Parts: sequence; structure tokens; C-alpha cells
Amino acid sequence: MLDPRDRGLAYGDGLFETLRVTAEGRVPLWAGHHRRLQQGVRALGLPVLPECRYQAAIAEGVAALAGKPGVVKLTLTRGPGGRGYLPPPEPQPTVLWQAGSLPVWSEPLRKQGITMGLCDAPLYPESLAGLKHLNRLPQVQARREVARQGWHEGLLLSCRRQPLEATAMNLFARFDDHWWTPDLLAARAGVAGVMRQWLMAHLAARGETVACDLRPLSQLHGARGVFLCNSVVGVLPVRKLAQWQWPVLDSVLQLQRSADALFLPG
Amino acid sequence: MLDPRDRGLAYGDGLFETLRVTAEGRVPLWAGHHRRLQQGVRALGLPVLPECRYQAAIAEGVAALAGKPGVVKLTLTRGPGGRGYLPPPEPQPTVLWQAGSLPVWSEPLRKQGITMGLCDAPLYPESLAGLKHLNRLPQVQARREVARQGWHEGLLLSCRRQPLEATAMNLFARFDDHWWTPDLLAARAGVAGVMRQWLMAHLAARGETVACDLRPLSQLHGARGVFLCNSVVGVLPVRKLAQWQWPVLDSVLQLQRSADALFLPG
Repeated sequence: MLDPRDRGLAYGDGLFETLRVTAEGRVPLWAGHHRRLQQGVRALGLPVLPECRYQAAIAEGVAALAGKPGVVKLTLTRGPGGRGYLPPPEPQPTVLWQAGSLPVWSEPLRKQGITMGLCDAPLYPESLAGLKHLNRLPQVQARREVARQGWHEGLLLSCRRQPLEATAMNLFARFDDHWWTPDLLAARAGVAGVMRQWLMAHLAARGETVACDLRPLSQLHGARGVFLCNSVVGVLPVRKLAQWQWPVLDSVLQLQRSADALFLPG
Repeated sequence: MLDPRDRGLAYGDGLFETLRVTAEGRVPLWAGHHRRLQQGVRALGLPVLPECRYQAAIAEGVAALAGKPGVVKLTLTRGPGGRGYLPPPEPQPTVLWQAGSLPVWSEPLRKQGITMGLCDAPLYPESLAGLKHLNRLPQVQARREVARQGWHEGLLLSCRRQPLEATAMNLFARFDDHWWTPDLLAARAGVAGVMRQWLMAHLAARGETVACDLRPLSQLHGARGVFLCNSVVGVLPVRKLAQWQWPVLDSVLQLQRSADALFLPG
């Protein structure tokens, strides 16, 4: 149970990470999650905790999964108190975990691709862009729209109508001679996903070009293929966005297998 | 205690109001707080609760104050659960209260005015502007800056360097023939305060002109006097902003007395 004065509740004053755990209890992408968590800790001015503090919470979550693959969500808040917005001078951070099963994406969708719509509200810029902080109302509102519209996911555009990300996944596209993902730092918006980071490094290590910049929505139409990713689901091809359609590329399915392989026994 | 799966904690998926309570347990500005709460409920798509549900929570907070004037903070969240950002189809909202003493602003500061600085980060636009939702990291970050700099408060500017509000107070200025407060709806940023609303109505009822638009920062220099307000503190004159100084106008101290009178016995 949580102290109702916790600043995570009062102001969303904290961070979270959603970790995919293998059946053997490994968290293959922990290094990436931990790196982003530390960036968030610095940006928010939270006390730096030793890594073992997080690992202890994750171990409890893994134990609760009892040998099943699943998800452990780690939440770090600035802890209780502080009169108004000003944090207490020596915050006592709260570390929480929750364990759950893996979300199910049907095999046909994973192979044939999902349907995406364009969300109405732009993703406005913010000072803490890229980080996985607890101020997530824009994503909650966008996800409500996705459900109302019956899409699988929704594409969030910048105020200049540049594609940025989906509500809970990052965006990639394959162009003739390169891969592309939106430059969230330049847009000052969105969450820089751990799977996005892994894929960028993985593609670069294979000698492939990954462009990271901002492009008008219209340019996405000229992509050969489009996919979404996150560190729980892996890679999900996009078949349809509003009136546009793309084929599911073999190279995207190959990336999907590479991402899935991270979580195979071994 | 709070369910750690509460969406207020997970995503800041909720709203709050900070109510000033008189020694007799009255909440003179409740109508304004309730109106804004209802706007937030509609915007977030939360279930509409009967007003008595809030009043019951406030009554508990008032009882905890035990006859002292103070503050009751009311928090409304979408309640527990929901896989990821998507809310559960039938949310069970959480209503929480916390009671506390009134913040102390020394009499000299209330009469001679406070010192304000310019916060570095702009207040970016957002879809839920005006509402008092739980996504308050920009204000937390700005309030940390205010403390680091040793100011009493900080002025938040828009991306176009237009004055918007302080970290926890709204801004007013007196010009030659009218009052002015920033148009937060046009800026799509900030919290439309209940005391701001009360003052706008109070001034209009007295036949005074209150302009509500967006102006460049430089125009504030030409104001005859400047003040901040919120529903707990009332009216607080500003003596200094960065290199600029203003006198404390009698008309501002008169507004301060009018705001204070709301909370007098009677």
C-alpha cells in the first residue's frame, strides 16, 4: 500500500519502467531500462539509489511471476510529502513493483500487421521529453481515442504534424536505402523507448543506416514498410495508417525475430 | 492508504483541488472548485460523482482540522487498474482528502510585495490546459528552480515568452485603465485558478475592465502594479521581477482585503 501523500500520486513526481521478464527470470533489456531510469533521476533531481535497490524490487516481481514469463513494472517516486510543489530537501524515494502477464498480440497480427489511426491531439513538446516519467495523461487520452475508434494503435503527431510515436510504442519506417525513426529529442516529445534504442544499435551494428530526424507525415506514405516497437511486445508491423497501406517487409519480420530472440530461453 | 495500482500514481490520471477552509469549517470558494473539478472530470472522461461524495470527503478533512482554519486537499483519480494507458471500461474513482495548516506568508511580504524571478523552462502548451490534473512535473521543476534561486515565486513564460502564471499562483497586472490577466485558454497552458476566476468576476461586478489576452513579457514592465493570487493565499503583491520593480498599489491591497474577507468568520 502507498502513502496517500506520496508525490507520485500528488504530482506524477516520479518515473517508471516496464520490464519484460523471461521464464527463467532474466530481464534482458535491464541495462537500457536502468540507463533511462538514471537519466530521469538526474533530470528530476531525485536521490540516486544503488542499482541493487531496483534489483531487489525486480527480484520480488520475478518471484511473483513464479516461473512464468511476464512483465514487472518498476515505479520510482520522490516519496511522501513536500508542501505544495516544492520537494522536501531530503526526499525518501518510493520504489514499487507490480508483476503481470505478457500482453497478448495474436500471431496473425504480428505477421500481417496492425491497423493504426491518427490521433487528434498533437503531442506537445515538454521539458522532460524522452524520459519515462509519471505524467502520462496525453498518452492516456490518446489511448482512449484509439479504443473509441477501434484501432490497434494511434499515431501521435507533433504540432507541426510530424509523426512522433504511437501511444505506447515507438515508430520506425523502412525507406529505399535506410531505416528511419523520429528524432524525439529534436521534437522535445515522446518516450525514447528501450527497444527503439536496442534496434537502432542492432541495425547500426549490422551496417545498416538508421536516420533519426523529423519528417512531415506525408513522407511516411513513401516508406516501403512501417513498424512499431516496445520492450514488452517487440516489433509489430503496421499494415495500415488511416488511408495508407504498406506491405509487411521480410526485413521487418526478421527484426521481429531478432527482438523476440532476446527473450528466448538461454 | 492507496492501492499501488491506482492510475493516479501510475499516470497522474486524475485531478485535485486545494480548498481553503475557515475556522468554522466553511469552504467559501467550493462552487468554483467544484466547477473546475467537473470540467476536469468531463475532459478526462471520468465517471461523474454526485457532489455529496466530494462533500463527504471534505467534511472528514474539516473534522481533522478540528476548528482551525486550514487547507483540505481533495484528490480524485480514475482508481485502480487498466492494462497500460487504456482506462478500465468502468473505472472506480478514488476520492482522497488531506488536511493541513494554512501556509504562512509573513505580513510584511503581504504588504510590501514579493520578489519573483523568471523560470528558465517555458510552460509548453497541453491539451488539458486550465484544468488541475495530476500531471504537475513542470510546476515541480519550476518550483525547484525558485528554491535554488531564492525567489519567493517564479514567472512561467510561454514558448513565445509571454507571461502565463507563477508556479502555484495566477498573474494579474494593473495597467493605466484596466486590469490584465493572461489568457491561459489561448496559450493552452497553465491552471485557471479559482481565485483568478473570483477576482475577474469581482472586478467586473465593480465595473472595472479586466483584459484577458496574451502579451509580450516587455509589456509587463509598463504595468503600474503586479500581483499573484491563488485560492489559499489570496492576493500577493509583486514588488520585483528580475530587474523590474513595481510599487504596491492601494488598489491591489484593497483586492487583497476583499479576498481575505471571503474567509473571515461570518
